[in-house]
Amino acid sequence: MFKKILIVGCGLIGSSILRATIKKKISKKIFILEKSNKHIKQIKKLRLNCEVLKDYQNQIPNMDMIIICAHLGEYLKILNKIEKYINKNTIVTDVGSAKETIFRKIKPKIKKNISWISSHPIAGSEVSGPKFGNEKLFSGKWCVLIKDKETNQKNLNKIKLFWKKMGSNVVLMNSKQHDYIFSITSHLPHLIAYNLVKTATDIEKEKKYDLIKYSAGGLRDFSRIAASNEIMWRDIFFSNNKNISSVIDKFIKNLRSFQKDILKKNDKLTNKLINTKKVRRKIVSLKQDTNKPNFGREN
Amino acid sequence: MFKKILIVGCGLIGSSILRATIKKKISKKIFILEKSNKHIKQIKKLRLNCEVLKDYQNQIPNMDMIIICAHLGEYLKILNKIEKYINKNTIVTDVGSAKETIFRKIKPKIKKNISWISSHPIAGSEVSGPKFGNEKLFSGKWCVLIKDKETNQKNLNKIKLFWKKMGSNVVLMNSKQHDYIFSITSHLPHLIAYNLVKTATDIEKEKKYDLIKYSAGGLRDFSRIAASNEIMWRDIFFSNNKNISSVIDKFIKNLRSFQKDILKKNDKLTNKLINTKKVRRKIVSLKQDTNKPNFGREN
Repeated sequence: MFKKILIVGCGLIGSSILRATIKKKISKKIFILEKSNKHIKQIKKLRLNCEVLKDYQNQIPNMDMIIICAHLGEYLKILNKIEKYINKNTIVTDVGSAKETIFRKIKPKIKKNISWISSHPIAGSEVSGPKFGNEKLFSGKWCVLIKDKETNQKNLNKIKLFWKKMGSNVVLMNSKQHDYIFSITSHLPHLIAYNLVKTATDIEKEKKYDLIKYSAGGLRDFSRIAASNEIMWRDIFFSNNKNISSVIDKFIKNLRSFQKDILKKNDKLTNKLINTKKVRRKIVSLKQDTNKPNFGREN
Repeated sequence: MFKKILIVGCGLIGSSILRATIKKKISKKIFILEKSNKHIKQIKKLRLNCEVLKDYQNQIPNMDMIIICAHLGEYLKILNKIEKYINKNTIVTDVGSAKETIFRKIKPKIKKNISWISSHPIAGSEVSGPKFGNEKLFSGKWCVLIKDKETNQKNLNKIKLFWKKMGSNVVLMNSKQHDYIFSITSHLPHLIAYNLVKTATDIEKEKKYDLIKYSAGGLRDFSRIAASNEIMWRDIFFSNNKNISSVIDKFIKNLRSFQKDILKKNDKLTNKLINTKKVRRKIVSLKQDTNKPNFGREN
């Protein structure tokens, strides 16, 4: 499909793309740019068929595609450096979890010869680094592509095909829609998980109770999400801060209403609890999660 | 160990106790009281070695142990009916998730001949009913026993031994301590999960966006917990409402502080996120959860 592609940032997502690209024979050559020596060592140890470039030193101006798999806070720096890998046919994409603000900021700085179509594969986990990469990470998962008035249709088709080869189901959105949807389905859940674990540890310190060891009753699930990469999530929270703040307000309003029901022992509560069950059934029927009790982790 | 035991309520927990009791040969005979015809059918289909009693009709006044595995809201009704299975040596226990308020209410009604020592096995999942029961459900899990000034030491030892045979690690608490600890590690996480799923569905309705299908980015984890039995959780929330309300206040205070950091792009946020990672490592090292990325559900 391609002759040369470049993956910038080879952590969990980058190295999963690398593995899938090798497996599906999507490109004759694959280049990697990675600033962490620890990650480079892991990549070399894995003996994956790719060439690791040293710190933007080589000039290889004919990449068919460049995939940026770095934290959102790195985008500007990367944009200033990738010129030497680009010609008029190169497609640039990224895999970031927030779009609108970041692209409003960097768009004026994207040179006219760069065709950047943004992607967001809805996949990942709490672990980081290339050793956890998985060629099937994107299989059966959604991948959102950002389309606006200026998007080049030919390049969009190419990038659609790329993600389909990764195993993803592609869906198009504009960046505003994307950021609002994921503020609810992803960004708020992560923040809530971080906040719940923080609240539990605050109370543990304050009351000197040994709480955490009893986390199997519910808290442990939140602790998995709250173990996600902190730089990645700081950048997402900052980049989508207005949407997240607005859904926090809605979340707190609903929580105060639950609190009132509980204090007053209002039986309206039961219906609220029943309705949330339907959502689980929908998620499982849409194949977005396993149907095994307890995620099957104890069988 | 016992000649006769009676399990009142044979859902997920009751039927798991039934299975483990059979497996470990803990009692010569096991009796079941269960009001749901659907559950009784499931139990009979499973051909588990037990006798299902019909609606408290039989008089069998010599149970060694009675284990109440019903919703908290049923306790009073059950207490009024179990007299005919009790003699002066019978030990009564329950597996409820909240203790203080419920026992303050029913204690004056417990007759002097009943020795009730309350248990709380920290085990379960989002599914209900005997068909999901599992003889290993309690294996390696904590089981809290409630000890106060009046607790009969000899009976306490017997019930300790029972849970150890179930595979549990037994820990003693008083009911006040228990209810506070589990308001944070279990009750608040459940309420937060219900609230997050409710907020997402409210927004889905309001904005007419198709959100739920993108839940793999985080929301799906919460939906599992928010699919737990609604009657069980209503009763827990009502029975421990003061503690839960107080931890909701702390949770909201912390969430407002996160909101401020995010809106102001305050880098203090990073350290807050880093600290929650340590909690995950502790939970995994205490063997309270799997160390597999994404709970291993996608491998």
